[in-house]
Amino acid sequence: MTFSRVVALSGGVGGARFLDGVARALAPGALTAIVNTGDDFTHLGLTICPDLDTVMYTLAAVGDEERGWGLQGETFAAMAMVKRLGGPDWFNLGDRDLATHLLRTEALAAGQSLTAVTARLCAALGVGARVLPMADGPCRTMIETVADGTLPFQEWFVGRRAQPMVRAVRFDGHPPAAPGVLAAIAEAELVLIGPSNPYVSIDPILSLDGVAAALARKPVVAVSPIVGGRAVKGPLGAMIPALTGAPPTAGAIARHYGGWLRGIVVERGDEGGVAGMAVRSTDTIMRSREERLRLAKETLAFAAELVA
Amino acid sequence: MTFSRVVALSGGVGGARFLDGVARALAPGALTAIVNTGDDFTHLGLTICPDLDTVMYTLAAVGDEERGWGLQGETFAAMAMVKRLGGPDWFNLGDRDLATHLLRTEALAAGQSLTAVTARLCAALGVGARVLPMADGPCRTMIETVADGTLPFQEWFVGRRAQPMVRAVRFDGHPPAAPGVLAAIAEAELVLIGPSNPYVSIDPILSLDGVAAALARKPVVAVSPIVGGRAVKGPLGAMIPALTGAPPTAGAIARHYGGWLRGIVVERGDEGGVAGMAVRSTDTIMRSREERLRLAKETLAFAAELVA
Repeated sequence: MTFSRVVALSGGVGGARFLDGVARALAPGALTAIVNTGDDFTHLGLTICPDLDTVMYTLAAVGDEERGWGLQGETFAAMAMVKRLGGPDWFNLGDRDLATHLLRTEALAAGQSLTAVTARLCAALGVGARVLPMADGPCRTMIETVADGTLPFQEWFVGRRAQPMVRAVRFDGHPPAAPGVLAAIAEAELVLIGPSNPYVSIDPILSLDGVAAALARKPVVAVSPIVGGRAVKGPLGAMIPALTGAPPTAGAIARHYGGWLRGIVVERGDEGGVAGMAVRSTDTIMRSREERLRLAKETLAFAAELVA
Repeated sequence: MTFSRVVALSGGVGGARFLDGVARALAPGALTAIVNTGDDFTHLGLTICPDLDTVMYTLAAVGDEERGWGLQGETFAAMAMVKRLGGPDWFNLGDRDLATHLLRTEALAAGQSLTAVTARLCAALGVGARVLPMADGPCRTMIETVADGTLPFQEWFVGRRAQPMVRAVRFDGHPPAAPGVLAAIAEAELVLIGPSNPYVSIDPILSLDGVAAALARKPVVAVSPIVGGRAVKGPLGAMIPALTGAPPTAGAIARHYGGWLRGIVVERGDEGGVAGMAVRSTDTIMRSREERLRLAKETLAFAAELVA
């Protein structure tokens, strides 16, 4: 079948690249992305939404592909001056990227919702897919470390380079899912989970009231963020053993999502540990926009077989 | 005499350049600048203090001398992106300049005073003079126009290019003078009024409770911002006739400040219309840092004669 209403859950870089492929594989308007906001934080008085921004920039084809965050051709004059003026420099923000944070922060302060601001920014950048933050209210991912106490996600991830070993992940705040999130899932023919970190990028979405129940009524297909026993990007490779005692494999991802997953797409050779669901193996590393499209098409074809 | 405690009242560009000369003509720490905040406004959620910033950047020798606002070597990537994202672009802010506004806005939101933030930013930039905002609370300069209603200063000055003809100037908000302002005047041996627009740059300072009374007990010397019947910069040349019916002359400046002015420094040839106070004529246009220093030294020498 050809899907005309697809929902995809996503974190930042890997998820965003997959979304870009899915958006282009489907008809215009067929994709709704539900994006993690657990990493959001306030810096220099600005509301920063790293995953939303990466998704937005990637879908608009203006993101810096090399660095994985921020905008192409970015400059960093403002942050250099912040440092000179004695301000914090542990979290870098590009000059053009600041425009997003300024407009968003101003709009939120004026009482607009994150959902509304995101829609407006996406429209300005010509993003065709519908991009929904998972929630308008705060839900903050907190990293409980073995030896350094509990740290807000960005302080652990950027400020401490994800070095302090993780004991548990929890979410502070329990907002309702953003308007449109539960309806989009209810109306979807298929739900995809991008190759994002399940603990810090997808679990915040699943923690929202009603999301898990809505997903349980839908065919859900995930793409594994693990390739050959390593995370393609980020701290996932160390988090899986720290949190589960098991090695970082596609099987660990499949077990984490559990019984409600209809199928999983894994890297060729990583099929071994996956049990209890359909598996499709292929090349999952997306080195180019063409590879995103190919992975998206293969995932949609696999899902079509499962749904048929 | 050699002055060891001097207060100077200032607006933006012209006043800031004069302050720079005075600061260098005096011993380190001898100058306290009291700066207009009537032009301050909120833009993109940021608290912008144009005159404070111009004074700070000019005293730190990092300001853009050509343009008269912002920083040397400035870039404008953030504002270009704001425009692309559909945000307002009528007020331009440089990328490095944004650092000042971000740090100030964050600090104010955290409950710090404008006085404290200004001291911290000046210290970071190595400004030797003491720079005080006239007030920590809002006092907003409003321009009542003949045909376009009442406009906040920046909307009139930047947004409308100072084109709508002025009928009156008023100040919304009546905050107390900032801590240190009245004491600095009380302790000063001399008060200088820089070559700033009296209506929109100096009158806001004079409108604060206690300032006029404190000045009345001190020798006050002004530098005329009018040269040969024209304002050196800005809308003053049109404001004087609009507000007083008189031509834009040094005499109009002298009459505006009135009896409590001990003396005025005017451009050579502009002495004619000044009555009732001592006058010193010289070259008042400051084309270089050397000319600022010379004008400051001449003004201080003139004041020393008056005080002796």
